[in-house]
Amino acid sequence: MKYQRCLVLGGRGFIGSHVVDALLSAGVAVRVLDRPLPGGVRELPPAANPHLLEMIDGDFGNEKDLDEALEGCDCCVHLITSTLPQTSNDDMTFDISTNLIGSLSLFEALVRHRIRKFIFMSSGGTVYGRPIQDRIDETHPTNPLSSYGVTKLAAEKYLAIYKNLHGLNSVSLRLSNPYGERQRITGKQGAIAVFLGAALRGQEIEVWGDGSVVRDYVYIGDAVDAIVKAIEYDGDEAIFNIGSGKGSSLIEIISGIETALQRPVPVRFRPARAVDVPRNVLNVDRAAKHLGWHPTTSLADGIARTIRWLEAEIQQGLSLHS
Amino acid sequence: MKYQRCLVLGGRGFIGSHVVDALLSAGVAVRVLDRPLPGGVRELPPAANPHLLEMIDGDFGNEKDLDEALEGCDCCVHLITSTLPQTSNDDMTFDISTNLIGSLSLFEALVRHRIRKFIFMSSGGTVYGRPIQDRIDETHPTNPLSSYGVTKLAAEKYLAIYKNLHGLNSVSLRLSNPYGERQRITGKQGAIAVFLGAALRGQEIEVWGDGSVVRDYVYIGDAVDAIVKAIEYDGDEAIFNIGSGKGSSLIEIISGIETALQRPVPVRFRPARAVDVPRNVLNVDRAAKHLGWHPTTSLADGIARTIRWLEAEIQQGLSLHS
Repeated sequence: MKYQRCLVLGGRGFIGSHVVDALLSAGVAVRVLDRPLPGGVRELPPAANPHLLEMIDGDFGNEKDLDEALEGCDCCVHLITSTLPQTSNDDMTFDISTNLIGSLSLFEALVRHRIRKFIFMSSGGTVYGRPIQDRIDETHPTNPLSSYGVTKLAAEKYLAIYKNLHGLNSVSLRLSNPYGERQRITGKQGAIAVFLGAALRGQEIEVWGDGSVVRDYVYIGDAVDAIVKAIEYDGDEAIFNIGSGKGSSLIEIISGIETALQRPVPVRFRPARAVDVPRNVLNVDRAAKHLGWHPTTSLADGIARTIRWLEAEIQQGLSLHS
Repeated sequence: MKYQRCLVLGGRGFIGSHVVDALLSAGVAVRVLDRPLPGGVRELPPAANPHLLEMIDGDFGNEKDLDEALEGCDCCVHLITSTLPQTSNDDMTFDISTNLIGSLSLFEALVRHRIRKFIFMSSGGTVYGRPIQDRIDETHPTNPLSSYGVTKLAAEKYLAIYKNLHGLNSVSLRLSNPYGERQRITGKQGAIAVFLGAALRGQEIEVWGDGSVVRDYVYIGDAVDAIVKAIEYDGDEAIFNIGSGKGSSLIEIISGIETALQRPVPVRFRPARAVDVPRNVLNVDRAAKHLGWHPTTSLADGIARTIRWLEAEIQQGLSLHS
């Protein structure tokens, strides 16, 4: 790879830890800036080249932490957000202050440290709003229904300005719903992980709405492959959709989980949430064309892999409840 | 008009004072919240119905001032910005904190006070960025070159969310370059006013670039007519371009000034500024169709009117230099 040392902001998270592994495996030195893990959670060992990895406990909103972390890096991947799509409307000012102004401070630091490549994790599920295309491409109107989507979109616009003003070389990835190994089964995000957690605990799966809501679920291995290809990319496109390009309803997800587990799982239906659009599926042709990237893992394979990982973790003592 | 009392934020400004006059003339009670005028500047008397006008000195970023100003109003026109397009990139965090977060606090207050109609002054000159259409319509991609444009655009997106979440009824007007009576000739904005100021002072007109830059100049009377029609509008469109729909180069503006003054004016050319796009002309068909609005004042007429006003003001003691 053409870069020597990459800072991964949020490298302890679900997506981040996979990005770290992929970069280490490619022989790139990796520095992680992230908040310390909570008590009782073990640090996962890197998949390869542990000598190339440095961990820094800190906050990306702290300029001193950021300067220390960026020192000597030529590449940066930004995976930190302080809000969730579904709750960002509860305090939009907080969302703007932490995510948008926080990202602007980061962009300033990237220029200061002459970072040669920056990957910004945007959001294919929120920047578009109510879709007018069956498979949403990058030219689709952007009318977010949540503050989360507005701040992601505004950060993309600021990155275009930074490219113009300071030559900051960046790519924004509008990611759909990633799932797979290491996603938290006790979190609030990620239908597949949350549903698997409930199924493995023997609890009812809770579905908001009638289960007909269609989303684009992309396997984490495919998503990380796209991030690595975006780091290596040198063309003029600045924004890419990253998803499976296929739609699955929540009912289909549950049926996929039942097939993988070879048993039925009980479901409870709850009232639909206001923020939900009925369908959000990405067109990923631009990434195919310019990044040479194609998602290759089927939903059935991805769910099966996630279950195998979860079962192994449970063997290792992973709690299904915390 | 269907509203009883309208708050005009920035009602002492160039656009605002004309909006106040138009609303008073239509028999609507008007409250103005604006910063006090600097010493030596006289308060203009309203054109009609002075008993319907209340002036409040205050800051729209102050929640208490805002609550006092909104009490008893059913309509609000927001014309305040704290930055200029050409300098907003110097401190983007300030731009976001004052314009975007400030506007969000306003939107919260509008919901609290059950305001029935809100007009947001957006920016046809900055939200689109580099044009790919000869006459830019509202569906044109929005890739601002300045933070000013990003925060205007983000505010529009938040207004769509507020409509969704709280039923806040709003219209955003993407205004081109307004000119006419009462525009400051000693300010930094408004080529026609600044050029006229120089011409009347007998100074050289300073042109940044070679004067080929084309903009859409709309006469203030036409712009205010659009604002009034937007207040009365009840349909589903939320965003309108407001401009003349015609392009004029700086050279053409100067030649128009020379014709109106019946004498040549000296010009000095200076290096082009990075933020300038070569051409920005709005397509105003949507406003024509849905607001029944058409700009009617030619550039020649508008310049002539502006000069007549300036000459009368100079008779009244207007300084050309402060």
